[in-house]
Amino acid sequence: MPKYKAVIQYAGGGYAGWQIQPGRPTVQETLREALHRVSREDACWIAAGRTDSGVHALGQTAHFILSRPFPVERLIRSINGVLPADIRLQKLIRVRDSFHAQKEARRKRYEYRIYNGPFLPPFLNGYVEHVSRDLDVEAMQLGARLLRGTWDFSAFAASSGTVLTRVRTLSLSNLSRKGPHLTYAVEADGFLQHMVRNIVGTLLQIGDGRRDPVDVLRLLASRNRRNAGPTAAARGLYLVKVYYSGPHLRRRRLGR
Amino acid sequence: MPKYKAVIQYAGGGYAGWQIQPGRPTVQETLREALHRVSREDACWIAAGRTDSGVHALGQTAHFILSRPFPVERLIRSINGVLPADIRLQKLIRVRDSFHAQKEARRKRYEYRIYNGPFLPPFLNGYVEHVSRDLDVEAMQLGARLLRGTWDFSAFAASSGTVLTRVRTLSLSNLSRKGPHLTYAVEADGFLQHMVRNIVGTLLQIGDGRRDPVDVLRLLASRNRRNAGPTAAARGLYLVKVYYSGPHLRRRRLGR
Repeated sequence: MPKYKAVIQYAGGGYAGWQIQPGRPTVQETLREALHRVSREDACWIAAGRTDSGVHALGQTAHFILSRPFPVERLIRSINGVLPADIRLQKLIRVRDSFHAQKEARRKRYEYRIYNGPFLPPFLNGYVEHVSRDLDVEAMQLGARLLRGTWDFSAFAASSGTVLTRVRTLSLSNLSRKGPHLTYAVEADGFLQHMVRNIVGTLLQIGDGRRDPVDVLRLLASRNRRNAGPTAAARGLYLVKVYYSGPHLRRRRLGR
Repeated sequence: MPKYKAVIQYAGGGYAGWQIQPGRPTVQETLREALHRVSREDACWIAAGRTDSGVHALGQTAHFILSRPFPVERLIRSINGVLPADIRLQKLIRVRDSFHAQKEARRKRYEYRIYNGPFLPPFLNGYVEHVSRDLDVEAMQLGARLLRGTWDFSAFAASSGTVLTRVRTLSLSNLSRKGPHLTYAVEADGFLQHMVRNIVGTLLQIGDGRRDPVDVLRLLASRNRRNAGPTAAARGLYLVKVYYSGPHLRRRRLGR
């Protein structure tokens, strides 16, 4: 049966996250309904990673299976035609039957966006975290850089999370500033629940002078969530890109 | 009595334009209410120009008078603190008593923003006009450039408008492209109602190959609104900046 891979953008403010939950609007359920209207099929969208309530996506990736093939150009146009404006498929391709959007994801990139100025421009409302107080950005940048590498991130993981290991490798952990716009960009082979937002909450404490940048190393060593900073608001967080290695297209003969 | 000049940003989607109208939310009324909550005074906000329903502003400018002086830094913070998130004062200064935000405006800059790609990113929804079909951008750029100069703009003015003269001078009329983002930037000593949106509607007809770029000169000469293109949607239009000549600050001794 034909399998499709979609790259999805969404403004998460109106959704209780990716994963279907009874009685609450979710991205996954909205996509399922749109696909059903277009194809009359009940297919499940499997994402690279679940995003939490209110989190945005510039490049969420998911796969689904249909019982018969559809031309992808018509399919993406039809699905986008029935989706609400806050969710859009950016790309849709047909992939080999063994492709799996979650299991084959090698790396993901998240960005956390902060507007650091006295008054938040109306056009950014809901799309960034607003911090009006002065921040020591250089100290935050040092704290961010120190997190690069392979560590046990228990101190930055939601205490409720249950996973076998909390060791992750951050290949990128960088805070950049462009005028009042701060962006924390992070890439890793995997992320624990609330990990990026807990890191940002801790970096903001560093920016406020309430922590030393090297504190992040002590926090990692403690492996204790209670030692790190608070969870930053969801509205600043974007799942930017999911990286896959190797070919996931079907070999030629694709046609449809 | 102390007079203040404010530079205002707003996302216009939730408002029936600038000017107060009974029973409909307007930017002017929302500002009046916010100032009243802060100062307990009923002051009228006089803008450089009225924006239509749904139009945005990055740099609308207005003045108001209070019966007693307030420190501007506290006043701007207090007003922004009670305004809804889709309106923000960006700057507030005290000005000489004779300053008039409308009468002294020498020039204004508007921008019309178009996203020209197959699928509109969710984050731009409501903030740009979406055109998915291919456009001949070079032809549109030529049409835009031809409008520079002093002309009678009757062909591009709302037929309902009543003004003494429809002659305006466009010191800038330029369409730029950056990937899928098209921006029509225009500066003039004054704008007739719907003028920018009627120009953009005509430029889009040129982009569709339904008109020749030099048509804009024939349209100007005809002075007939029925000959020009349709009015482009309000959601793409921004009042970007109002230019004043000369000093409008009070002389020193300002203090408060």
